[in-house]
Amino acid sequence: MTSFPDSHRDLLDAEVALLATIGGDGLPQQTAVWFLHDEGELRLSLNTSRLKTRNMHRRPVCSLMILDLDKPHRYLVVRGRARLEPDDEYAFARKLGAKYNADLKQNDRPGEGRVKVTIEPTNVYPVDMRAG
Amino acid sequence: MTSFPDSHRDLLDAEVALLATIGGDGLPQQTAVWFLHDEGELRLSLNTSRLKTRNMHRRPVCSLMILDLDKPHRYLVVRGRARLEPDDEYAFARKLGAKYNADLKQNDRPGEGRVKVTIEPTNVYPVDMRAG
Repeated sequence: MTSFPDSHRDLLDAEVALLATIGGDGLPQQTAVWFLHDEGELRLSLNTSRLKTRNMHRRPVCSLMILDLDKPHRYLVVRGRARLEPDDEYAFARKLGAKYNADLKQNDRPGEGRVKVTIEPTNVYPVDMRAG
Repeated sequence: MTSFPDSHRDLLDAEVALLATIGGDGLPQQTAVWFLHDEGELRLSLNTSRLKTRNMHRRPVCSLMILDLDKPHRYLVVRGRARLEPDDEYAFARKLGAKYNADLKQNDRPGEGRVKVTIEPTNVYPVDMRAG
């Protein structure tokens, strides 16, 4: 179970996080993602066909930023290893979908699957400052 | 001069962008930064002592995400090469500071300097969808 600072604990329930992975071209890649604070960890449910998922299959590392949308100088960044596990039965996808009142399977086409991604942090970095 | 899609042109005047670089440990690193849409390009003014600056000295690549804070499923991502140029006289820092009505030099300590970072895009990626 990862320890998160009390000062930024509210962000663990935010709607959106910003995921950075490393592309096949060696450049960072950023996308907005849904996430769940689940059993003490930050987890994602990703479609197997997406670039971000393929990036983490190749290089299982990532950074997840949760931004306070009302005060974008305040955010939490969790960097580390990305542990990918099959979610063929959509068990975790349903759990994450409940947070958003959404059925993730409806987003997926035939032949696509889901993986459950757990971030194993090497850094948890709370920020509260003006950018600059 | 980089071409940006009209659908996301308003974001070029946003207050904050989210920069992803690659750390010495090979993991992505994300921070919020000030930026300026200047002479048709996206540019940053960074303190030379910061980790993100050192990351780009080592590996001159980055991704910059500009998020619509009111609709975080809508954003612009610009990925590419980071061109770093000395800004010893703070000429560009003043130009960027004018956007924020701020004196960037006041943030810097003796011995620290500034670089002007221009993103030379390989991808410009407009997104407008629900995350998931």
